[in-house]
Amino acid sequence: MQRYFILEDEQWSDEAVTIIGDDVHHIYRVMRSQPGDQIICTGRNGATAICAIEAISSNQVTARIMEWVRQDVELPINVTIAQGLPKGDKFELILQKGTELGATSFIPYKAERSIVVWDEKKMRKKQQRFEKIVKEASEQSHRSLIPTIQDSVTLKQLLELSKQYDACIFAYEEEARSSDFQSFATVLKKLQRGMNLIICIGPEGGFSENEAKALTERDFQAVRFGPRILRTETAAIYALASISYHFEELEWDT
Amino acid sequence: MQRYFILEDEQWSDEAVTIIGDDVHHIYRVMRSQPGDQIICTGRNGATAICAIEAISSNQVTARIMEWVRQDVELPINVTIAQGLPKGDKFELILQKGTELGATSFIPYKAERSIVVWDEKKMRKKQQRFEKIVKEASEQSHRSLIPTIQDSVTLKQLLELSKQYDACIFAYEEEARSSDFQSFATVLKKLQRGMNLIICIGPEGGFSENEAKALTERDFQAVRFGPRILRTETAAIYALASISYHFEELEWDT
Repeated sequence: MQRYFILEDEQWSDEAVTIIGDDVHHIYRVMRSQPGDQIICTGRNGATAICAIEAISSNQVTARIMEWVRQDVELPINVTIAQGLPKGDKFELILQKGTELGATSFIPYKAERSIVVWDEKKMRKKQQRFEKIVKEASEQSHRSLIPTIQDSVTLKQLLELSKQYDACIFAYEEEARSSDFQSFATVLKKLQRGMNLIICIGPEGGFSENEAKALTERDFQAVRFGPRILRTETAAIYALASISYHFEELEWDT
Repeated sequence: MQRYFILEDEQWSDEAVTIIGDDVHHIYRVMRSQPGDQIICTGRNGATAICAIEAISSNQVTARIMEWVRQDVELPINVTIAQGLPKGDKFELILQKGTELGATSFIPYKAERSIVVWDEKKMRKKQQRFEKIVKEASEQSHRSLIPTIQDSVTLKQLLELSKQYDACIFAYEEEARSSDFQSFATVLKKLQRGMNLIICIGPEGGFSENEAKALTERDFQAVRFGPRILRTETAAIYALASISYHFEELEWDT
């Protein structure tokens, strides 16, 4: 069943959902749905219902709420990925894969070794594209929430933001090279369900010594993600997959 | 230190390594190395040495072996990714990320729902590009082995090949939707270091019922990779990251 995020409260009544905008095109033209077909609708708060389409026109679809469903598809830990601005379209890959893997939010930050500069003029368009990527990835992976994407920040601002989190870590290449490393598992074992974790990842060239020092001073723990050296876009994916494995697969099994 | 794979035995003597081909261009033009600079050289068998450059010309570099190093950067489990042919350049993403995350080999297979057809004529060129991707990703992630890429097979051939493995699993979307699912952790806990695991992943449309039945009959166990529905290219990445986390981070910590 196809899932749609219906984000405005006025689109929901007690009995029905009114769908407008791009989703109508998807239902009408892409899926070629008919009255009677069922879809899944999810509201801003994650509440999710199976709905039956009642009426379709080119600019609006009405669907009757058939059944509310309880779904446990969100990671038990709220994970924020703070990503040093990478080159090319890597940030988009991180948004898409990170959303599939359950991230709660993304904060791009201007790292010392970030080569790319995000043009302020183009930011609005870029932000719209980013929002579209996480919305589509949330729908595709059947999530009940859409991750948020914050405006890009400096490291100083990021260190301030980090106060809101229960645990702060950063992926440090030197840990992967060291035989006396801090295992990612040591950190995850200390976390409890519902806690907020921020994971800071460097851009292509990694963290400068200054950055690593500043992060450590603000209680970010250096961890390694296995002994191999990962590309910047692979680090976020590794972290989220491991968190899913730890809390959703391993703990389920014990 | 930059790593190079020097794969022909005749390039190695007891004291020195002779580097030819593309790597010379990389050393000479990209890294602009000078005599005296150190590099890491790895042979076909994974043996790895720190070497000092002695002589550089436009078509050959000679480097003296300074010190053999023992490195533990390979996954303790040999993992083969059997990937249903996906669309576009997704297989290349799987090769690159899978190599970074420690895969031993890749087997593309023609799934019932694979839309793409790999043109026999273009296969030689494609294979060369694939080999280049895994070689570069191995160097970049500092691995001591380069994964192998096998010729594409049918599901029937894949089932035959699977006899060589200690454990066989497939990523089944229905498991992610079920509340009575088999956890990936249940499988990993039974594996011992050195064992061979094959992970079969469907193309964009997933496995057909026939395929799921055939796999199950040949002792492939259905698993889920978390409760969210992952894209085909994300499934291989999730599996490898979890295996690294389980055997390299979690077990190290206990």
